[in-house]
Amino acid sequence: MPRPAPWRLSPDAYPHSQPIQTRFGDMDVLGHLNNVAFAALFETGRTKFNHHAGLWGALLNRRAVVAQMEINYLAEGQYPDDVKIATGIGEIGNRSWQILATMFQGGQPIATCDATVVMDKDAGGNGLPDAFRAELAKWRVREGGEA
Amino acid sequence: MPRPAPWRLSPDAYPHSQPIQTRFGDMDVLGHLNNVAFAALFETGRTKFNHHAGLWGALLNRRAVVAQMEINYLAEGQYPDDVKIATGIGEIGNRSWQILATMFQGGQPIATCDATVVMDKDAGGNGLPDAFRAELAKWRVREGGEA
Amino acid sequence: MPRPAPWRLSPDAYPHSQPIQTRFGDMDVLGHLNNVAFAALFETGRTKFNHHAGLWGALLNRRAVVAQMEINYLAEGQYPDDVKIATGIGEIGNRSWQILATMFQGGQPIATCDATVVMDKDAGGNGLPDAFRAELAKWRVREGGEA
Amino acid sequence: MPRPAPWRLSPDAYPHSQPIQTRFGDMDVLGHLNNVAFAALFETGRTKFNHHAGLWGALLNRRAVVAQMEINYLAEGQYPDDVKIATGIGEIGNRSWQILATMFQGGQPIATCDATVVMDKDAGGNGLPDAFRAELAKWRVREGGEA
Repeated sequence: MPRPAPWRLSPDAYPHSQPIQTRFGDMDVLGHLNNVAFAALFETGRTKFNHHAGLWGALLNRRAVVAQMEINYLAEGQYPDDVKIATGIGEIGNRSWQILATMFQGGQPIATCDATVVMDKDAGGNGLPDAFRAELAKWRVREGGEA
Repeated sequence: MPRPAPWRLSPDAYPHSQPIQTRFGDMDVLGHLNNVAFAALFETGRTKFNHHAGLWGALLNRRAVVAQMEINYLAEGQYPDDVKIATGIGEIGNRSWQILATMFQGGQPIATCDATVVMDKDAGGNGLPDAFRAELAKWRVREGGEA
Repeated sequence: MPRPAPWRLSPDAYPHSQPIQTRFGDMDVLGHLNNVAFAALFETGRTKFNHHAGLWGALLNRRAVVAQMEINYLAEGQYPDDVKIATGIGEIGNRSWQILATMFQGGQPIATCDATVVMDKDAGGNGLPDAFRAELAKWRVREGGEA
Repeated sequence: MPRPAPWRLSPDAYPHSQPIQTRFGDMDVLGHLNNVAFAALFETGRTKFNHHAGLWGALLNRRAVVAQMEINYLAEGQYPDDVKIATGIGEIGNRSWQILATMFQGGQPIATCDATVVMDKDAGGNGLPDAFRAELAKWRVREGGEA
């Protein structure tokens, strides 16, 4: 079980960060944020990031779906405190790209999420359009040591 | 199907108001906020209101549960816009009390929620403690025409 | 806070009944089914009932939305046990109708739900089509004393 | 983005299989099962598997949490059809173990989930108890070609 790279735990690695509210229903029987609730929080973080970055507009009406999601749980989360989700673009492939995120609460990283998004088969015959690829590139994460 | 009283549609009727974020997963197949999502949003509004008002502290360790919930849906809700939930205390009974709320989006009321909370049977033999009753009374809604 | 009529607590009052699974995430911090989870369970019960009864087909492509929902919580629910949801049609109005349901677990009623569904304004100018009204009537609840 | 190994796509690889119901609220705006809903379905599959296999009893009161979750989405899922979730134990480490699952609908694999569960730090000082390790071993997946 490889753990997230150390640079993922710093908000400085990401071009975008936003507060996201937790909900009462996110808590499990132990009173902590449930692991599925983390997935819902990350999904909301991703879609708000996409809105903010104008990425859906750049993709026009092509359809994209999540093909893979990996979450690493680092610490317990609490309600009713907000979390902060930092987000950026990771690897950009021929028909797919990664949306990488780390969730913080009280200044501590509590989870990372790597989502791989793929352009719909029918729409993606020729790979990602160049204009969209350029938009994605503006929001790349800054991996440690590369800066 | 009686509809909410007109005074419920004004934020001025409530002593407390707070922004609550919507989530991507709140949307149904039509792209509007789903009716169960409204229930989750109101629940988060209630528990945050209780935190803010210090009501759980005043109730000490007695347990309270929702006994009845009525939601009136007035208009469609949208993601990713926030909603604003205005909250106050309605009728106060012997062992129960109402938490009344209205949800607004873009300045328009989109739903009301009446929740009746009851003190646990074992804990509530003698009704609500006077100190708690006094705390509740501080957060009463202001019904139109009665002021 | 008027409580459900006694006839609502008997499965015999309803023309349709189905098992619905609970989920781990339905539990709240006390280890019982959360009140919003009840709303989600009833929603799934309603939509499966509609599928079973062919009601959406009869309504063709007209759009209907939930306008009001009232849930009465009667007892605590448990995971991982299934619940049984009994469903039937209540009052039928000009543009709206009620879907009434009671949830049972371990043979005991644990909640009732009254949902009022309204035909979309644009589609419902002339009220419910007669053919649809006739379909609804086939699935009426059997109120005690009326049989 | 490495994809699931081919043996993961066969129900025969798993010692346990169970039907799990989908819910209306699992659908996203496109009318398919949402990716977070897959996480909730897998979570329910895992906890029901644990009940069935008696694994929590064998662990006594030690606490275990999900440390990592990876989901691979292979095809779209539909409501109101049930899914079938096949489950087994993967690698068993010193303080952790994998719960591997594949979700099928209409006979086709639509997603895999690899969850890594870790015994609580305080409880796990000396690693997994031998009796629990033996219980886990009874529920191992059968990897293709290795049998």
